[in-house]
Amino acid sequence: MNAIGSDLRVGPAADRAELYALGRQLRVDSVRSSTAAGSGHPTSSMSAADLMAVLMARHLRYDWDDPANPANDHLIMSKGHASPLLYSMFRAAGVVDEDELINTYRRAGRLQGHPTPILPWVDVATGSLGQGIGYGVGVALAGRKLDRLPYRVWVLCGDSEMAEGSVWEALDKAAFYELDNFTVILDVNRLGQTGATEYGWDVERYAHRVTAFGCRSLTIDGHDVDEITAAYEAAALADRPTVIIARTVKGSGFSEVENKPDWHGKPLPEDMAQRAIDELGGVTAIHVRGPLPEASPPTNSGRASQHSASVDPPRFDLGEEIPTRKAYGQALAALGARPDVVALDGEVGNSTYSELFEKDHPDRFFQMYIAEQQMIATAVGLSVRGYRPFAATFAAFLTRAHDFLRMAAISQADLCIAGSHCGVEIGADGPSQMGLEDIAMMRAIHGSTVLYPSDATSAAALTLTMADLPGISYLRTTRGGYPVLYGPDERFPVGGCKVWGERPDDVVTLVGAGVTLHECLSAATELARQGIATRVVDLYSVKPIDAESLSRCAQQTRLLMVVEDHHPEGGIGEAVAAVLAKGRPGARFAHLAVDSLPGSASTTQALDAAGINAGHIVRAVLAELDPKRQADTEE
Amino acid sequence: MNAIGSDLRVGPAADRAELYALGRQLRVDSVRSSTAAGSGHPTSSMSAADLMAVLMARHLRYDWDDPANPANDHLIMSKGHASPLLYSMFRAAGVVDEDELINTYRRAGRLQGHPTPILPWVDVATGSLGQGIGYGVGVALAGRKLDRLPYRVWVLCGDSEMAEGSVWEALDKAAFYELDNFTVILDVNRLGQTGATEYGWDVERYAHRVTAFGCRSLTIDGHDVDEITAAYEAAALADRPTVIIARTVKGSGFSEVENKPDWHGKPLPEDMAQRAIDELGGVTAIHVRGPLPEASPPTNSGRASQHSASVDPPRFDLGEEIPTRKAYGQALAALGARPDVVALDGEVGNSTYSELFEKDHPDRFFQMYIAEQQMIATAVGLSVRGYRPFAATFAAFLTRAHDFLRMAAISQADLCIAGSHCGVEIGADGPSQMGLEDIAMMRAIHGSTVLYPSDATSAAALTLTMADLPGISYLRTTRGGYPVLYGPDERFPVGGCKVWGERPDDVVTLVGAGVTLHECLSAATELARQGIATRVVDLYSVKPIDAESLSRCAQQTRLLMVVEDHHPEGGIGEAVAAVLAKGRPGARFAHLAVDSLPGSASTTQALDAAGINAGHIVRAVLAELDPKRQADTEE
Repeated sequence: MNAIGSDLRVGPAADRAELYALGRQLRVDSVRSSTAAGSGHPTSSMSAADLMAVLMARHLRYDWDDPANPANDHLIMSKGHASPLLYSMFRAAGVVDEDELINTYRRAGRLQGHPTPILPWVDVATGSLGQGIGYGVGVALAGRKLDRLPYRVWVLCGDSEMAEGSVWEALDKAAFYELDNFTVILDVNRLGQTGATEYGWDVERYAHRVTAFGCRSLTIDGHDVDEITAAYEAAALADRPTVIIARTVKGSGFSEVENKPDWHGKPLPEDMAQRAIDELGGVTAIHVRGPLPEASPPTNSGRASQHSASVDPPRFDLGEEIPTRKAYGQALAALGARPDVVALDGEVGNSTYSELFEKDHPDRFFQMYIAEQQMIATAVGLSVRGYRPFAATFAAFLTRAHDFLRMAAISQADLCIAGSHCGVEIGADGPSQMGLEDIAMMRAIHGSTVLYPSDATSAAALTLTMADLPGISYLRTTRGGYPVLYGPDERFPVGGCKVWGERPDDVVTLVGAGVTLHECLSAATELARQGIATRVVDLYSVKPIDAESLSRCAQQTRLLMVVEDHHPEGGIGEAVAAVLAKGRPGARFAHLAVDSLPGSASTTQALDAAGINAGHIVRAVLAELDPKRQADTEE
Repeated sequence: MNAIGSDLRVGPAADRAELYALGRQLRVDSVRSSTAAGSGHPTSSMSAADLMAVLMARHLRYDWDDPANPANDHLIMSKGHASPLLYSMFRAAGVVDEDELINTYRRAGRLQGHPTPILPWVDVATGSLGQGIGYGVGVALAGRKLDRLPYRVWVLCGDSEMAEGSVWEALDKAAFYELDNFTVILDVNRLGQTGATEYGWDVERYAHRVTAFGCRSLTIDGHDVDEITAAYEAAALADRPTVIIARTVKGSGFSEVENKPDWHGKPLPEDMAQRAIDELGGVTAIHVRGPLPEASPPTNSGRASQHSASVDPPRFDLGEEIPTRKAYGQALAALGARPDVVALDGEVGNSTYSELFEKDHPDRFFQMYIAEQQMIATAVGLSVRGYRPFAATFAAFLTRAHDFLRMAAISQADLCIAGSHCGVEIGADGPSQMGLEDIAMMRAIHGSTVLYPSDATSAAALTLTMADLPGISYLRTTRGGYPVLYGPDERFPVGGCKVWGERPDDVVTLVGAGVTLHECLSAATELARQGIATRVVDLYSVKPIDAESLSRCAQQTRLLMVVEDHHPEGGIGEAVAAVLAKGRPGARFAHLAVDSLPGSASTTQALDAAGINAGHIVRAVLAELDPKRQADTEE
């Protein structure tokens, strides 16, 4: 590679020649870093290099020495595969050095193939396309409605991404919430991974759509720094979100790959890379410091630092029949005393009981309507600014946002999620509304916590606990009302469980949560009547799981049966089975779960049809304990 | 309830009075059925009653006596909660009787809370909003591009649904594929579940968006049968997809609930129901037979019935290093000999190798661009017409379509899904591109089959096998090339496994799939060198799982260790743990999986960092077999 070239300093007063030179440097560094890595996306970086050169020199108000400055603008690379461009910007800003850029990119350390917040200048992980605009909406919403700070949010987006519905959910909400601090820069380079994009350079089509969704559209030549500058200035003055639709050339600046298909996601071979660098004017060391943010205001209402407010949790009387979803709503409303707590819902707040928070704290409630992807994206964006979002919808419909939840974990966002109407328990509405996969989904999210309360006291307590947990926390709530089991002073530590009726000579352990805990308790009463001493585990903490208590039960009893209102895979049963399989030989394991396709029915009928009610539990226990059957199995 | 009233017959020549009378009957029956059930959505049904009355009497070309007639039009209720309206139409058509409608709705049997294909007149399950348009696109695509049949697809959609991005993915593809046989009827009744929708009666806003997405929009009064008729006639003549934007009144026809919030999803109490019936003119028994479809053509190229073509599968040489994703593509291309097989991809066909099918069978390949939800929705729609869709993208991005996959299972669709680039094995691209949750997601889909080949021979064989499996089948493929392990005549029955190097005196069983199988084989060689006889299970069939072989291994060896390139929850490890926990006490279970957040690295480094390579396996086995450690644990 070339030696370091000219040592120019560029700032907000940069002239056209300097901006073009910076654009060339960003291209050269994108080529160099990806060729050195042997993988990456130089051509997708080159198309947006002029757009980013102008942005960082003249418009991005960012203190590179203080990435935590609350007044900083935010730049989100929705086209995360253009990471060479982003990292080349970091080199130009002087926060990543030549050695790190060239010698570590994509191999180890911070400069990953797609950006993640391991880097202090990155807000969110990107790389699953169509998500960056949604996150940006959340950050912009925090700026306009909560922080009341003058920062601007810029999102660089690729044209291929526009096929994702999530993009339109996001632009819709940007317009609905009148986010005039929000600008999308759409890099229309015409070429996707396998060939031409759906609409190529038909920028008018994008403009038409963007306008229809309530945003201002500006169509420009993405390689003309004057047009770029004018568009950014216009965006800053617009009274609504702006989408700058920039016609660009993939691989621009290197004639051998410019506007050619088959160069997506491919580093240039060494010899080509050298020709590219030469054609682009060689390696340079232009140092950029753009505008600084306005001084941040002395106080910053609603910020995450203000956790100290005293929260007065709801209290419930033993035996009272309260749905756990309602206890969630009451606890959430109480948590509203904390100014960092915000809530979102997917237009089902009277089902999830998010409405209780909305009534008390309308300024911190954000209606996402029926757009679950954007609900999670907004939550992630709000968390970037230090808020603690609680987002709720039916457990079944959280599956809609699975990819956003997965990416939120990579962003290391702290989110609290509530999924209501879990399982066949809901009865009449039928299978489309029954969350029967949500535990599997939420357990497999990296670093998640999965909580599943069985009564109002534990639901409220766990809701409060969630507010301070790191990572993605999930509370699974039930539609129907079931008796309060615990007094108001009972504690529910994450990773614990409650064991009901434990005696040394118990024969059977039943494990349940939610509606099945109540069925297990009924079954235990009946089994005791038949002379079979039975204890019941309330597995309110599914992940982490109380391996110690479960192992003790497995050692002390002959049969350990898990009963759950969820499909058999990835739920409570397998979580327990994994604990037992790793321990010493003990109780025989059995598992009742929903392994047929349910239909509409009453709750009573639905639990019966799924084989997870007290009657089925009793019969299954008796069958498992039958000496003849045991002898057969153990032969 | 009232006795049955007038016995009118209504057909395509119905006059205005008859159409209005039918609209009133559909309302009355919606009220009656939901009140009798004690749950349901009468007001959301009433807003669309006139729209459906005109459709079924005059425009829906449907042979109610032969729902399998390939020339039938298709009606999809995207607003599945309006099931009382749909079932009232079935009563009017004479295919569901009074008794079934009033006495079973939402309680048991076929008339579920949201429609499912248990009913012969229902193509797909709905109830997760924003999905019906997507399914309709698939059915319409089959009609235009494959069946070449003149049927029309009608989708009734609610206004709240328009907030879902999936709706815009669907309309985009309807326009892109020029589906002039496709009509969406948008019931703009202004009120959602919790209050006003995002845009109320701003029908022009919807029209603007729909037009921007390439569809024709027609804005009408949804309670004026003349305007409705004119719109349906115009839609039938349009040269592109049509969206009829109908301004309607929620609860229309009953003054006490008309246009009032707080009546979403609530049946009318008995006394109100009676007043509603009275105001609507009482119970009637209008019998409707609308137009019949054109006679179906004698042959129907590409139909599902034509399975008999001989497929010439690819063959691989032992030891050759071929990625399983490539073997998938080659086998898929070979399967193209079957005219019912179609393929879809999310614009990554050169990564998933769907492109091999596209090259050979361009007429049966559908590019969905980066729109994974619509990819699955299209697949479901194609399956309605008897095609066997194979849909592929990165395993990580299938999470985007989780809700569609969940609903596809309720639709009892037969789909083949391939997810490539699984696990940390991909290395440099980083965590956003690594499928680490996909096994948990796909296992928990009701009735699914989950396959995870480790070499090209098994990948190709399982791809062929999938083509005849019922339900949702999933093939997990790996990015890198690994040696072919099996000769071309090896069989891979679903529910089986392969055990390598089994001897009666083995001490250890290692279980792997994909890249970890190769690591397990290396580890077994090293362990054998150290005098520890080890067998290796190739768990190519994850669901169903070969419980018998695994149990045998657990009985015959002291340690059974599962190694997987997936998060620990819901994957192979827990599937095996559940088998072992249910069986007799046997081998100690151990589990190596990806339980940290991975970063970018080489494949070698990534497997090492995740602790799932041969070296880690050997060390973990030695630690588990260490007598001191065992003594500690077993005390």
